[in-house]
Amino acid sequence: MEIKVFACPTAEDFTKEICQHLDVSLGKMNVMKFKNDNTFVQILETVRDKDVYIVQTTQPPVNERIMELLIAIDALKRASAGRINVVLPYYMYSRSDKKDQPRVPVTAKLFAQMLEVAGTTRVITCDLHNPAIEAYFNINCDKLSAKKLLQEYFLEKKLENMVVVATDAGSSKKAHKYSEFFGCPLALIDKRRDGNNDKAIASNVIGDVEGKEAIIFDDEIDTAGSIIETARILEEHKAKSIYAGCTHGILSADAVNRIYQSPIKELVITNTVPLTEQKRIDKITVLSIAPLFAQAIRRIHEGRPLGEIL
Amino acid sequence: MEIKVFACPTAEDFTKEICQHLDVSLGKMNVMKFKNDNTFVQILETVRDKDVYIVQTTQPPVNERIMELLIAIDALKRASAGRINVVLPYYMYSRSDKKDQPRVPVTAKLFAQMLEVAGTTRVITCDLHNPAIEAYFNINCDKLSAKKLLQEYFLEKKLENMVVVATDAGSSKKAHKYSEFFGCPLALIDKRRDGNNDKAIASNVIGDVEGKEAIIFDDEIDTAGSIIETARILEEHKAKSIYAGCTHGILSADAVNRIYQSPIKELVITNTVPLTEQKRIDKITVLSIAPLFAQAIRRIHEGRPLGEIL
Amino acid sequence: MEIKVFACPTAEDFTKEICQHLDVSLGKMNVMKFKNDNTFVQILETVRDKDVYIVQTTQPPVNERIMELLIAIDALKRASAGRINVVLPYYMYSRSDKKDQPRVPVTAKLFAQMLEVAGTTRVITCDLHNPAIEAYFNINCDKLSAKKLLQEYFLEKKLENMVVVATDAGSSKKAHKYSEFFGCPLALIDKRRDGNNDKAIASNVIGDVEGKEAIIFDDEIDTAGSIIETARILEEHKAKSIYAGCTHGILSADAVNRIYQSPIKELVITNTVPLTEQKRIDKITVLSIAPLFAQAIRRIHEGRPLGEIL
Amino acid sequence: MEIKVFACPTAEDFTKEICQHLDVSLGKMNVMKFKNDNTFVQILETVRDKDVYIVQTTQPPVNERIMELLIAIDALKRASAGRINVVLPYYMYSRSDKKDQPRVPVTAKLFAQMLEVAGTTRVITCDLHNPAIEAYFNINCDKLSAKKLLQEYFLEKKLENMVVVATDAGSSKKAHKYSEFFGCPLALIDKRRDGNNDKAIASNVIGDVEGKEAIIFDDEIDTAGSIIETARILEEHKAKSIYAGCTHGILSADAVNRIYQSPIKELVITNTVPLTEQKRIDKITVLSIAPLFAQAIRRIHEGRPLGEIL
Amino acid sequence: MEIKVFACPTAEDFTKEICQHLDVSLGKMNVMKFKNDNTFVQILETVRDKDVYIVQTTQPPVNERIMELLIAIDALKRASAGRINVVLPYYMYSRSDKKDQPRVPVTAKLFAQMLEVAGTTRVITCDLHNPAIEAYFNINCDKLSAKKLLQEYFLEKKLENMVVVATDAGSSKKAHKYSEFFGCPLALIDKRRDGNNDKAIASNVIGDVEGKEAIIFDDEIDTAGSIIETARILEEHKAKSIYAGCTHGILSADAVNRIYQSPIKELVITNTVPLTEQKRIDKITVLSIAPLFAQAIRRIHEGRPLGEIL
Amino acid sequence: MEIKVFACPTAEDFTKEICQHLDVSLGKMNVMKFKNDNTFVQILETVRDKDVYIVQTTQPPVNERIMELLIAIDALKRASAGRINVVLPYYMYSRSDKKDQPRVPVTAKLFAQMLEVAGTTRVITCDLHNPAIEAYFNINCDKLSAKKLLQEYFLEKKLENMVVVATDAGSSKKAHKYSEFFGCPLALIDKRRDGNNDKAIASNVIGDVEGKEAIIFDDEIDTAGSIIETARILEEHKAKSIYAGCTHGILSADAVNRIYQSPIKELVITNTVPLTEQKRIDKITVLSIAPLFAQAIRRIHEGRPLGEIL
Repeated sequence: MEIKVFACPTAEDFTKEICQHLDVSLGKMNVMKFKNDNTFVQILETVRDKDVYIVQTTQPPVNERIMELLIAIDALKRASAGRINVVLPYYMYSRSDKKDQPRVPVTAKLFAQMLEVAGTTRVITCDLHNPAIEAYFNINCDKLSAKKLLQEYFLEKKLENMVVVATDAGSSKKAHKYSEFFGCPLALIDKRRDGNNDKAIASNVIGDVEGKEAIIFDDEIDTAGSIIETARILEEHKAKSIYAGCTHGILSADAVNRIYQSPIKELVITNTVPLTEQKRIDKITVLSIAPLFAQAIRRIHEGRPLGEIL
Repeated sequence: MEIKVFACPTAEDFTKEICQHLDVSLGKMNVMKFKNDNTFVQILETVRDKDVYIVQTTQPPVNERIMELLIAIDALKRASAGRINVVLPYYMYSRSDKKDQPRVPVTAKLFAQMLEVAGTTRVITCDLHNPAIEAYFNINCDKLSAKKLLQEYFLEKKLENMVVVATDAGSSKKAHKYSEFFGCPLALIDKRRDGNNDKAIASNVIGDVEGKEAIIFDDEIDTAGSIIETARILEEHKAKSIYAGCTHGILSADAVNRIYQSPIKELVITNTVPLTEQKRIDKITVLSIAPLFAQAIRRIHEGRPLGEIL
Repeated sequence: MEIKVFACPTAEDFTKEICQHLDVSLGKMNVMKFKNDNTFVQILETVRDKDVYIVQTTQPPVNERIMELLIAIDALKRASAGRINVVLPYYMYSRSDKKDQPRVPVTAKLFAQMLEVAGTTRVITCDLHNPAIEAYFNINCDKLSAKKLLQEYFLEKKLENMVVVATDAGSSKKAHKYSEFFGCPLALIDKRRDGNNDKAIASNVIGDVEGKEAIIFDDEIDTAGSIIETARILEEHKAKSIYAGCTHGILSADAVNRIYQSPIKELVITNTVPLTEQKRIDKITVLSIAPLFAQAIRRIHEGRPLGEIL
Repeated sequence: MEIKVFACPTAEDFTKEICQHLDVSLGKMNVMKFKNDNTFVQILETVRDKDVYIVQTTQPPVNERIMELLIAIDALKRASAGRINVVLPYYMYSRSDKKDQPRVPVTAKLFAQMLEVAGTTRVITCDLHNPAIEAYFNINCDKLSAKKLLQEYFLEKKLENMVVVATDAGSSKKAHKYSEFFGCPLALIDKRRDGNNDKAIASNVIGDVEGKEAIIFDDEIDTAGSIIETARILEEHKAKSIYAGCTHGILSADAVNRIYQSPIKELVITNTVPLTEQKRIDKITVLSIAPLFAQAIRRIHEGRPLGEIL
Repeated sequence: MEIKVFACPTAEDFTKEICQHLDVSLGKMNVMKFKNDNTFVQILETVRDKDVYIVQTTQPPVNERIMELLIAIDALKRASAGRINVVLPYYMYSRSDKKDQPRVPVTAKLFAQMLEVAGTTRVITCDLHNPAIEAYFNINCDKLSAKKLLQEYFLEKKLENMVVVATDAGSSKKAHKYSEFFGCPLALIDKRRDGNNDKAIASNVIGDVEGKEAIIFDDEIDTAGSIIETARILEEHKAKSIYAGCTHGILSADAVNRIYQSPIKELVITNTVPLTEQKRIDKITVLSIAPLFAQAIRRIHEGRPLGEIL
Repeated sequence: MEIKVFACPTAEDFTKEICQHLDVSLGKMNVMKFKNDNTFVQILETVRDKDVYIVQTTQPPVNERIMELLIAIDALKRASAGRINVVLPYYMYSRSDKKDQPRVPVTAKLFAQMLEVAGTTRVITCDLHNPAIEAYFNINCDKLSAKKLLQEYFLEKKLENMVVVATDAGSSKKAHKYSEFFGCPLALIDKRRDGNNDKAIASNVIGDVEGKEAIIFDDEIDTAGSIIETARILEEHKAKSIYAGCTHGILSADAVNRIYQSPIKELVITNTVPLTEQKRIDKITVLSIAPLFAQAIRRIHEGRPLGEIL
């Protein structure tokens, strides 16, 4: 089976990088809107019996990204694609992974069901908010991780007297793993409502950060509220300098501006979520995870194990 | 089983009209967006073992409408709703009902699959572009029609010397049924590419329209390009006056403005697609189909046949 | 995967023609009836991991044709066939494609479901009555067309002053495409009930046919009632000569005799539906579509696109 | 939920008997053929949310019986029937229950899959050839038995010095149960190919039959070849008189005539398979199982256990 | 629909407590083993169209518990139970909820699939290790929680100067919620491998515990290794006294003995997992969660919301 | 696709024999139990896109065998195995193949459903108790048979004046086939309850056994109650010597000891069920069916027919 790699429009830059590493050219596909706002997709080259990889990244409007992906999958299926591997550097709606209030959806599961029903035969994704999401699928799912990229980047900085900081109890497990890797202590922020006042939040550091090079690790940074609040507290508690690292830099709303004004010295993210031109500031370092995806795709295509690259 | 009727936000006006006819209050549901552009839905009252009807209309962005509907269905399903009846006055993507080019999707089928996989137990819709879409579903599907509404409206006008006109060969079957009802002749526009010139379109009238009261019927009017072109030709061929009628007034792009400037005397549509305030002009008459939907819902809820209202 | 082509008994002639073009020998399969009228099928050669094509044509009793096909598919599935491609030159029950009255079946969908549940992995068919039927399937479906065959046949006749005629509004879309191809006008028959008298039908020609070489196009001709009535009206309206063309010559009941006695000069059909010996008359020309099916099968087998032959 | 009972045409007599016992009137349903030999069904009264029972018996052509049943189920499903209970006094293709040769179908399983995919929610049947067929279904299946009817009928005869005879080793298990009930011995016929001659069959009695009242029991009698051969051997071995009993009297080909000429004194069957007028002879006694079906349907409808009537 | 409550054998005590609260008698069901070690189940009273609740608890051998439950579900399904609600106070294999190493199973998902395929229509469970497990199901799943029971128990103790302690970073999120409830600080144990020595584990307390009443909270306690190690460290760090609380007291291997000998003053668990007679020691307090399950079952049976009891 | 063969722990000996015949090494897989009695499986080498065969034999506890197999299948599926062929020399729960009492399970079907839902793509098994079980699967199922092995073994004995004996009416069909093969008579044991006394069983021989070399054939021997009782009766009826043969030697409880003390001269079984060391006695001859399984696997792997080895 020949390999074919396609990109949904907003994922083109990321996919081209993958294609370069794979030494294949990007598949031709037309995605457009009719006047009635209906999305239309046409695959412009044969995919019959081919091993197809279609890449979609997230970028508002997110629901448009999902629908154009699903419609493209339907087009590929009806065009008799041999295998339809959906590449999602960031798994959309991954934080809607459980029913934690009455009568709410589990959209991460719904998205999995929609991918399957449309005709996906494999999902390739990265650093899921909750690894249980993988098992929402009945089809195969390969998970990559940006952990090594981030670890190597910070190792090269040769920071001394480090501390890894979790923004809250919920992310302390992931932060703990980084602290084990760096052989440094862990601290976490204990956020809670202050007495009867529902809005006011009292935050406190559990663990010792004074005089240390603090790195805040999380799987994704969205509005950046948590890491900025964390940075502020670390500053109060006299951390020497404050770094932050995460796989998915969603950076929604005015996150970039707030990071710019925050005590964070450097935020390191990957390109699983495309950082638009206007969001690029010096403080934010973007590591490319495209080479890792290219390796994974080559191995999946050739039926070789992924273990060695994880 | 108690009845519960919910509306997605843009369908609230239409649904309230239904609720009035049913003498029930609109179910409480919160639909919002997180900062990361993820849609969130919470059903605010119990639906356990209830006979739920959730209404969604179309209005750009269409993909947002679909996703918020699916997410709401997921929330209802997880909240143990007894039956989940999805009410779609206009079935989105209904014109993407076949694979008429290589490697294109059949999004109307994909939408049906997504509705089913999300947990829908019945779909209630109206005047499908292709009635075969009904059979895309494995769940039950009830189809209503605006035909009677439109017929009665034009009957009351007591037009004399009528002719029903189809905008092209593809819509002549539906137009023919109207001409049978009114006992008047049928004409149709024969559009075709002119010789070798791919762009140029030569249009001609097949049938006699001179001096007649012409009514153009179609199932939906989108950009209005077809009916305006038809009206122009009818004017050339000396039709006495030109009316148009359809179930679904999509009226995308600058359709309303173009209708305003066209020789069309009156366009009659229903409210299956909400006509926003700024699109309302005197030339456009909107008939409400909400009473028909209310009757259908009552009968479905009570297990009585729909035949009498179709 | 090796290719294997099988034929249900009544499809043997058609399939042998395909096999000749593919240069393969017809697969051995026994289809018989037990005394209790139960159909029995045995595949007489190994199909394990093979790319199997099984052909069934329609010919009364239609339900027998369907059941023997489904039973053969079950036998192939249990014999571990690699892929089971069902070749249906005519898709049975294709006119039962929608619920146009209360409480009727959509047998075209039911047939699709039965094919899938029996184990079919792909359907290859031709000129569906409603192209939406393709999307009844969740498996792949390839549609061929006899359009080119018919167009080329009539082109070679070099008829002058042509008009394409649709037998009613419902078939005018297909007729229109032919009229575009030939660059000639379109006309259609406007059939309707005459006043209060439910039985009587008044038919009228919309468009100009006098002195013209008229060709009636449709996707299938069953009892031939429509085209004969059309021919009669065309004769009344002084058409110069009357031809008819269609993909599927069902020709049920006494259709052939009625065509023989009608003003139709020549009826051109293809062999998607086998024309039994006793139905062959000089007026009826049968074009073979088997070469097109052979090409499609070869391309599907080799994973090459069908676009070039459509 | 209201009860509604429908009959496929050839099952009308049997179903009317059921309806009398249930004191309901037979549901109105139209089953016909179009000229192109396509079966058409229309349910003529509302079944929305009703508890529907549809009865089909077997009678050649069997495949027609199956297809008309499936099409009727599709019509019921699309008409929003609440539950669709399919009543099959004789389960068609029940002897095609296993793959006992290479590359043959298991049509009994295929039939089960077709019933499910069409929309059946429960099957009610009787004396399956292989009770494992029940588990081919994922839906519920209720099995009735004619055993008591047959037992009581023969008990009343007060035969003395009985022996129950199985026609071959395959049916000896069922025969054995009857012999236990009557407290009499069992014998069986040992049929086998004679040496190298493939056709010739040597048959022998295992067990003692001389001077006894022999009853041959089986689940179904098709061509009657087995029981007639058995009767002949019993006669040779000086059985005093020879009776036969079975649930399903298929009696295909010239079975009735051959029974008439055989040494069988009386054959007792039930009406699970309708015995057409011309097949009725004095030697054949038909017991009606309709009352048992009526009881079962009432209990299923009312949610009461069947145990007491089995 | 009448309610019926059944218990798998080892769940009988727990289920009887539920039955008392519901004022229904325990359903009769026979579960036994044949000589060949095959499990056999027979439901001893009618369940046709009934609303059935079947309870299974965990207790080694766990795989036997799962198989006997699945076999019982199959028996209930084939006996035409109306609804089959599976009550699992502890969801077996809940810690096998993700693929965290190459080529390992996600048995929690497999178990969900097995429950569904066997015929379960709803699962009722409690304090899942990962709440995402709920979304492994396509059927409804209701989750209860022992949180309130544990909170109220410790509230009544009126401990002063409390600290909630998480046994590791992974459980700190749950512990944090308890600390918010009690309005007391949080601490956590930072366990890690010590340098190059793979086996040796260095553990440290993050946060302040000296002189405080420490409560260790977790969702389940299995071998008790973690909480005993935690207790030891807390003792080293001079906590005043050490309590522990969890929903699921698995207490496998010699956990009870080790707790007995540990510095833990009191361990509070619920009876989601039956504590066998020989495991009962004074230090372990068991709170009954059966009343909560009884309330949930009553509400589910009556179609009333669960929100008020969660 | 490369072949990979794995064995569940208790199937290792049998699988190693298969591997030797195939000249492949046994795949590495770890199966263990956690302290909480949860089974854990890890596949220790890549199976991505491989043609995997996983072998499980039966041996108490049977439910453990089933669960460890299913968990291993889940691990293989999530590790992207190309095909997952499950090799079951003995199909567990095969005697629970029908619902022969009210409200009992059909565990053989449940097991089939569990195998499918876990991810099996093919089942390879041997001498099913009821061949209809094969059709419980929607996936492919290949059935092997030990018949030839047993026939050849007894042929070589050159017994004279043979009789084949069935232990009861239910197994007489299989016994009959052996008697045909050997060209010798058939006898069967007629077991029945004696009058009103429910427990007491009267057994009788139907057919002639005096002075003959009797061979009792059955598909499986479990507690050996039937064959020992049969042997006893044959002895009473003066059979010259008594042999027994079966495919599956379950030999549960004290079967071996009872056989040892019985008049059976030799019991011939195969190794579909592993005979543990302590059960081996001189009277029991074990024929290896592993070579047949190895041949079948090679043919399935290479896409060649099995017919020649059956």
